[in-house]
Amino acid sequence: MTNNDTAWQALQAHWQELADLSGIGALLGWDQSTYMPRASAGGRARQRALLSGLHHARATDAAYGRLLDAAERRTDLTPEQGRAVQLARKHFEDAARVPAAFVTTWTQHGGESYSAWVAARPANDFARVVPYLEKSLDLSRQAAAFFPEFSDPMDYFVDQSDEGMNATRVDAVFAELRATLVPLVEAVTNAPAPRTDFLHRHYPQDAQLRFGEDVIRAYGYDFDRGRQDLTHHPFMTRLGERDVRITTRVKPHDLTECLYSTLHEAGHALYEQGVDDAYLGTPLGQGASAGVHESQSRLWENLVGRSRAFWAAYFGKFRDAFPEQLHDVTEEELYRAVNVVSRSLIRTDADELTYNLHVITRYELERQLLSGRLAVRDLADAWHAAYEQNLGVRAPSDEDGVLQDVHWYFGQIGGAFQGYTLGNVLSAQFYAAAQAAHPTLDADIARGEFGRLHGWLREHVYAHGRRFTPDELVQRATGEALSARPYLTYLRGKYSELYSL
Amino acid sequence: MTNNDTAWQALQAHWQELADLSGIGALLGWDQSTYMPRASAGGRARQRALLSGLHHARATDAAYGRLLDAAERRTDLTPEQGRAVQLARKHFEDAARVPAAFVTTWTQHGGESYSAWVAARPANDFARVVPYLEKSLDLSRQAAAFFPEFSDPMDYFVDQSDEGMNATRVDAVFAELRATLVPLVEAVTNAPAPRTDFLHRHYPQDAQLRFGEDVIRAYGYDFDRGRQDLTHHPFMTRLGERDVRITTRVKPHDLTECLYSTLHEAGHALYEQGVDDAYLGTPLGQGASAGVHESQSRLWENLVGRSRAFWAAYFGKFRDAFPEQLHDVTEEELYRAVNVVSRSLIRTDADELTYNLHVITRYELERQLLSGRLAVRDLADAWHAAYEQNLGVRAPSDEDGVLQDVHWYFGQIGGAFQGYTLGNVLSAQFYAAAQAAHPTLDADIARGEFGRLHGWLREHVYAHGRRFTPDELVQRATGEALSARPYLTYLRGKYSELYSL
Repeated sequence: MTNNDTAWQALQAHWQELADLSGIGALLGWDQSTYMPRASAGGRARQRALLSGLHHARATDAAYGRLLDAAERRTDLTPEQGRAVQLARKHFEDAARVPAAFVTTWTQHGGESYSAWVAARPANDFARVVPYLEKSLDLSRQAAAFFPEFSDPMDYFVDQSDEGMNATRVDAVFAELRATLVPLVEAVTNAPAPRTDFLHRHYPQDAQLRFGEDVIRAYGYDFDRGRQDLTHHPFMTRLGERDVRITTRVKPHDLTECLYSTLHEAGHALYEQGVDDAYLGTPLGQGASAGVHESQSRLWENLVGRSRAFWAAYFGKFRDAFPEQLHDVTEEELYRAVNVVSRSLIRTDADELTYNLHVITRYELERQLLSGRLAVRDLADAWHAAYEQNLGVRAPSDEDGVLQDVHWYFGQIGGAFQGYTLGNVLSAQFYAAAQAAHPTLDADIARGEFGRLHGWLREHVYAHGRRFTPDELVQRATGEALSARPYLTYLRGKYSELYSL
Repeated sequence: MTNNDTAWQALQAHWQELADLSGIGALLGWDQSTYMPRASAGGRARQRALLSGLHHARATDAAYGRLLDAAERRTDLTPEQGRAVQLARKHFEDAARVPAAFVTTWTQHGGESYSAWVAARPANDFARVVPYLEKSLDLSRQAAAFFPEFSDPMDYFVDQSDEGMNATRVDAVFAELRATLVPLVEAVTNAPAPRTDFLHRHYPQDAQLRFGEDVIRAYGYDFDRGRQDLTHHPFMTRLGERDVRITTRVKPHDLTECLYSTLHEAGHALYEQGVDDAYLGTPLGQGASAGVHESQSRLWENLVGRSRAFWAAYFGKFRDAFPEQLHDVTEEELYRAVNVVSRSLIRTDADELTYNLHVITRYELERQLLSGRLAVRDLADAWHAAYEQNLGVRAPSDEDGVLQDVHWYFGQIGGAFQGYTLGNVLSAQFYAAAQAAHPTLDADIARGEFGRLHGWLREHVYAHGRRFTPDELVQRATGEALSARPYLTYLRGKYSELYSL
C-alpha cells in the first residue's frame, strides 16, 4: 500500500501489534492441541485468557480510535487502505459495543456449558444440558441485540462469519440445494453400493502421513512457512505472517481419515499462505469469510482430491505406499470407494453428497430456536424429526442426535454451521471459473500438476485477503453472484455417472 | 503462604500475570528452537520483542509499585511473604534503574554483535569483532554503573546471576580449584588413557533417545508436567507452573552426547519441577541462582550419571539397547570411557576434570577486561597465553580460541561463566550432604533407585525455590558455607582410582 507517512505507519504498527498478539494466541492454542504436557491445562487456560485480555485492550484502545478517526478524515487513501480502515473501524466498534462484563459472563457460561455437554453426551442425557442451552439461547439473543441494525439475530450471526450474507439469502440457497439433494440422495442410495471393504484394512500411520504430505507439497503447501502435526481434531492456524500450520489425525483402520483431513486443512492453509504479502499484519491479511475459506478446503479435498483425475495421477503412488493392503484393488474401485454415499447419523463422517443435509438440518433448527418457534426442551425431538425428513434416518439416542456436535455447547446458538455448506457451494463455483479460464485443468490434475489451478486461485481469491467483501470477491472471480448452480451441476454429473443413474 | 487478604491477593495476581507473561515468552522461544518453520524467524523476533515489552511494562507499572509499597509497610507478613516482597522490590527497582533507551541500545548492539560473530568465527577473523567487543565492554560497564552500590562491575554481574556472591569470593574458590586441578590434570593425562574406540560407533537416534528418557523417568522427571524434544543446543525451560520442558540433541556417532545432555537438562528440570506449589507464580517460584541451578544439572549428569554405581544399574540395559555396538565392551570399560580426561580446546566438549579450567580461564579474562588491565585488541593473544598456562594447549586459530563461545558476543562482558564452576563445586557439596544423611545412596543408585536422593534434594533444595538466598540455602542444606573441599575430595578420589595415581 502507498501513502506511507508517519500517521499511516502508526496505524500499521498498531495493526501489526494486534496481528502479533493474535499469532501468539494461536501458538498457545496450537501447542495446547499438539505437544503441551497434560498437567498444564489450567495454567494454559490462564495464559490464554491473559493474552485475550491484552488483545482486547489494544483492540479497543482510545489512542487506536484516534488513529482511525484521523485515517477516516483523509482523502488520499488508496482503495486498499480505505477498505483496511473500514474493516478496522468495524472491529473497533464491534469490540466496544459489547460490554466487557457481558463478554466475561458469556465466556464463563460457555465453559460451564461445554463441561456439562462433556458429561451429558456419553450419558445420553439431554435433560442435563437443557438449562445450559436455554441460557445460551438467551445470551446469544442478548449479544445480537447489541447490534440493532440486524432485525433478525440470525442475520447478525451469519454476518459475523460471512460478511454481507444474511439469513434470507442463506434460506434461499439452502432451499435450492435441498430440492435437488433429497431426491439425488434417494436415487443414489437405492442404487447398488460400491465395494468399500479395503478402506478398513490396516494402514500404518507413517505411510499415511507421508502420502498426505507428498500430495499437499504437490498442491503447493509451503513447508518452509508451515508444518503438519497430529491432533485429536484437525485444524489450520496462522501463527505469524510466514507461519501457517495444519494438523491432521490418523485412524490406522481408515484409509480416508488422514488423507482427506490433510487435504482439507491444506486447502485452508493454501488460502492463508497465498494472501498478498502487503496485506499481512493489516485487517486485510486473512481469508474473506468462513464460507470462502471453507470453499478452499473443500475444493482441494473434494473437487480435486476425490476426482477421477486425482486418482489417475496418484493411484500408482498410493498402491506403492500400501502394496499389501491394495493388492486386490483397482483404480476404479478406489475412486468409487472414496466417493461412497450413505445415509448416516454423524455429520463429520458424512460423504460429500449427504453432508449438506446435515448442515441444513442444524441451520434450520438454529433459525427456529432464535426466532422462538422452537423451545429448547423440544430440541431433541425436533432433531429426530428433522433427520427423518431430511436424511431419512433416526438416531437411536440423543448422544448421536442433538448431543452430537460441540458447537452449540460453547454457548452460542446461531451462525455455527451455514459456512460449511456455503463453502461447498462456492468451491464448485470457483472451480468452474478456473476451469473456464484453463480448460485443461482436469488433464493437469491427471498428471499430478496443480500449478495452474493453484495459480488461478491465488490470483483471483487468495492474494486479495479481505480486500473485497465476499460478494465482491465471488463476482470478480467468477463473473456472477454466489450461485448454487455450479455445485448442483457438479454433484449431479459426478454422482449420476458414479451410480449409473 | 497465609495472610490471604485482598491487598495480598492483588499482589499475587500481579505476580501471576508476570509469571504467565514469562511462560508465554518461554513458549515463543521453545517453539522457535523446536518446531517453528524456518521462514518465520523475522515474525517470531517481532512477537518476542512485543511480549518482552509487555512484560517490562507490567514489571515497572506504577500501580504495582504501590502494591509493593503497601506490602512493605505491613508487619504481619510471614517470612516467606517478606522474602517474596523483598525480591519483587529488587526486580522492580532494577528494572526502573536501567533506562529503557539504554536497554534498547544494548539489545540492538547485542544482535549486531552476534551477527558479526556468526560471520567472523568461520572466517577466523578476530579483528572483525574487536569493535563490537569494545562497545560491549563499554555498554557492560555503563550497565553496571547504574548500580553504584557495586564498586567493581564484575561484582554486579556476579550478583545478577548468583545473588550474594561477589568477584572476590569467586576468585578465592577458583584459586583453590586451580591449585588442585592443574597438577591433577597433569598427572591424569600422563597416565595411560582408557579405551574409547566404541564411543564412536553408530548408535541409532531412537534408541539413544529412549534410553535417556528411561533414565530420567527413573530419576523422577515427570513427563505429565514436561516433555523432551530435539534442538541444536539443549536447554531447559519453564512454560508454566506444570510445564517444565527439556531438549536434547543426538549425534549418531557419539554415545555420550545425547545421554549426558538429557541427564544434564533433566537435572535442571527436576529442580524446577520440585519447587513448592505454593511458591509458583510468585518471585519465589524458581531456582535460587545460576550456580545452584547448575549444581543440580551437574549432580544428575556427573555425580550420578558418570558414577560406577549408575553403570552397575544401567550397563545391562544399555547393552540391551545397543547389543551390536557394545558386544565387546565391559562395564568397566564403559565406565572408564565416559570419564576419559583429555586436554582439549573446546569447553563444551571438555570432561568433568578439565572443564573448570576452561571456565576459570574465561572468568579471569572477563575480570581483566572489565578492570581495564586487558585491552580488547589483545584478547585473542591473552586467550592463547591463558590456555597454555591453565590447560597446556594452544588453539591453532582464534576460531577455536577467543571466537569459540557465543556468550561475549551477545553484548555483555562479565558474569557469563562463573556459574558453571560454582555449580560443579556445589554439586559435590550437596551430594556429600545427601550421602551423610543417607549413607546407602550409592547402593540405591547401583540398584537404579533414585527416590531417596531425589527426596533429599527436593526437601533441602528444590522445594525452597528462592525462599532463601543461595548462601542461606547452602548453609541450611549442607551445614556449612559454600566450600570447594567436597568437590576436590570427590575429584581426587574418583580420578586417582580411575587412573591408578
